[in-house]
Amino acid sequence: MPAISTRGEQMPPSPIRKLVPFAEAAKKKGIKVYHLNIGQPDIETPSAIMDAVRNASIPVLEYSHSAGNESYRKKLVEYYAKAGISLSHEEIMITAGGSEAIQFGFFACLNPGDEVIVPEPFYANYNGFACAAGVKVVPITSTIENGFALPPIAEFEKVLTPRSKAILICNPNNPTGYLYSDQEMEALGQLCKKHDLYLFSDEAYREFCYTGEAMSALSLKGLEKQVVVMDTISKRYSACGARIGAFITRNKEVYATAMKFAQARLSPPGLAQIMGEAAVDLPADFFDAPKAEYQARRDLLVKRLNQMPGVFCPNPGGAFYAIARLPIDDSDRFCQWLLDSFSYEGQTLMLAPATGFYGTAGLGKQEVRLAYVLNLTSISAAMDCLEKALEQYPGRKLN
Amino acid sequence: MPAISTRGEQMPPSPIRKLVPFAEAAKKKGIKVYHLNIGQPDIETPSAIMDAVRNASIPVLEYSHSAGNESYRKKLVEYYAKAGISLSHEEIMITAGGSEAIQFGFFACLNPGDEVIVPEPFYANYNGFACAAGVKVVPITSTIENGFALPPIAEFEKVLTPRSKAILICNPNNPTGYLYSDQEMEALGQLCKKHDLYLFSDEAYREFCYTGEAMSALSLKGLEKQVVVMDTISKRYSACGARIGAFITRNKEVYATAMKFAQARLSPPGLAQIMGEAAVDLPADFFDAPKAEYQARRDLLVKRLNQMPGVFCPNPGGAFYAIARLPIDDSDRFCQWLLDSFSYEGQTLMLAPATGFYGTAGLGKQEVRLAYVLNLTSISAAMDCLEKALEQYPGRKLN
Repeated sequence: MPAISTRGEQMPPSPIRKLVPFAEAAKKKGIKVYHLNIGQPDIETPSAIMDAVRNASIPVLEYSHSAGNESYRKKLVEYYAKAGISLSHEEIMITAGGSEAIQFGFFACLNPGDEVIVPEPFYANYNGFACAAGVKVVPITSTIENGFALPPIAEFEKVLTPRSKAILICNPNNPTGYLYSDQEMEALGQLCKKHDLYLFSDEAYREFCYTGEAMSALSLKGLEKQVVVMDTISKRYSACGARIGAFITRNKEVYATAMKFAQARLSPPGLAQIMGEAAVDLPADFFDAPKAEYQARRDLLVKRLNQMPGVFCPNPGGAFYAIARLPIDDSDRFCQWLLDSFSYEGQTLMLAPATGFYGTAGLGKQEVRLAYVLNLTSISAAMDCLEKALEQYPGRKLN
Repeated sequence: MPAISTRGEQMPPSPIRKLVPFAEAAKKKGIKVYHLNIGQPDIETPSAIMDAVRNASIPVLEYSHSAGNESYRKKLVEYYAKAGISLSHEEIMITAGGSEAIQFGFFACLNPGDEVIVPEPFYANYNGFACAAGVKVVPITSTIENGFALPPIAEFEKVLTPRSKAILICNPNNPTGYLYSDQEMEALGQLCKKHDLYLFSDEAYREFCYTGEAMSALSLKGLEKQVVVMDTISKRYSACGARIGAFITRNKEVYATAMKFAQARLSPPGLAQIMGEAAVDLPADFFDAPKAEYQARRDLLVKRLNQMPGVFCPNPGGAFYAIARLPIDDSDRFCQWLLDSFSYEGQTLMLAPATGFYGTAGLGKQEVRLAYVLNLTSISAAMDCLEKALEQYPGRKLN
């Protein structure tokens, strides 16, 4: 048979999904599994945005403009204006989720062999997009001791090479929940300006901040040519399955280049663009309820974790993730053990081993990511399970 | 500013869309423009499949399985069975349009620098996907004289190099409308087997055949490891804006590799998967009406074209495209002239210059692609315009 491609062989499987067969096996045994492993919120998709699709009159579901419906892009101008970001609709391109926005950024800005510097731990799928584009991810380690704050700028400068082309951040951060301070954002901006690097900023969790506000990279002055923001409605409106995101830049050349990739795939999903457009008209206080809910979950989760002997979990400032250090030998082994060898009162939990979020081999072996996307009762029950599990786990190991 | 990528610079803009500003300017002058330039059907999206979305109860629009909803894939097994193709749902992966299916095929099977052989003229966006993947498109010329039949197999063998990795066809063909015979398909299959090449087959127009049936590459015996089919609901159900397609292969290794790219982008569009699933349950005679309509349009279009002095248009066997040779100096110049310098009774037409569908520079200068996606009255009026235009065009040139 013809060989598969080298990039196909090198393409990493999703570390978040690799434990799925073990979870399915546990469920077949009748065990209830609390899914804290994936960022799929349980919060309902607002009925108003689903109704916008239901009530739309669409005799022919045509291709939209390759950059997305103009009416939607103009609505998004309003959305960003409310967030203090001034844009024109010609600086916004609608994409199939944030995923496609990241792909467009890599394809338009980076050549095969170019390097993108990313603070680790980072969203694991960045590896996949980098592999597809032939780009090298250069990780800079942030540490749990200081809550995964931005590593010192000097650390970034140490790894710069002639192939360094961009810095990629996620703010507030998946998987750490860390919220970059304005000073950190300014420092990153200065770094990108000094060394003529792109600043890719994944801002999917903008609204979910508990200790301040997220500064958009688009608010950095004098970086119009450097900044590309990747955005999505997935988490904002609990609409992960819609697959609607946005690629945003004030750099006209980058926009025009990304547009060629957008034209090749014709248009972004049509029905879901209607959802996105309707979402901008949700009441001004729409985010109050989900944000309060996530904050209460975070407070419970972090408190319960830190009460367990040998566990440390910094208090995340945003998004709906936390990384905890556990008294274990190997997070991959532990997370699998939770599914195939453990249960407490007929229940267990599924976590994401943090190893999959580090680019540096060997890191994250005592860390797990927890997505607080379940209600308080479920989180409490899941924490009961974790507490018991850590008592029983044969690979228990204190730091 | 940081430089854009080389692949971004090399990425071709859409040849179909480059004349859009001229069409917009014509409309601003009050001229009615008949759009025969793009494969956007005017036929209504079946209300039953829109209603499936309207009536769905979706409290949380969650990520689907990365391969698409299992229920939809199982439904597609029924769809392909009706077309005489036996598949399991684990050989079908749902994609964001046929576009993403082509991308997955290129990424999973081809390395940068590998060559994919494509009979020209071909669907122009293949160039874009090849550019994104760093793959070289090697064209083999088919000619209007014999209706764009498959070039002799010897022509394919002539261009084989150690980097040749795949053959890509579209059947029935966009942009020529040519319907490959079973013998041609068998010959291609033998060629791929002999030289261990992948056979990528874009089968978006399967139902629209007027002189026989399209043989799917999946029906070729002994080519389970070679064949990858790219499919889409866009044209089949007039649902171009839905962005739902499928990547199909019986080669488990290729499937598993494509799956890693699918996991990186999480899932295909959610609402439109509901449309696709409902479409399989449309009545058995659903295609009778659109097929008869397209055939009547083809008959009128081809007859009118061949009645014009100096025009030659072979009768296409499928899809809803035809390529005609016109008595003109340069199809790009002519198509622009139709929009910016011509009108007949306040009307004109928009065509796609065939130059954009050839990989060999200089070909297609006397050819245009016409998409018969308008009703008979509009096609008739558009042909009136074309007839007058050819009389007046200053660059008139007989062969």
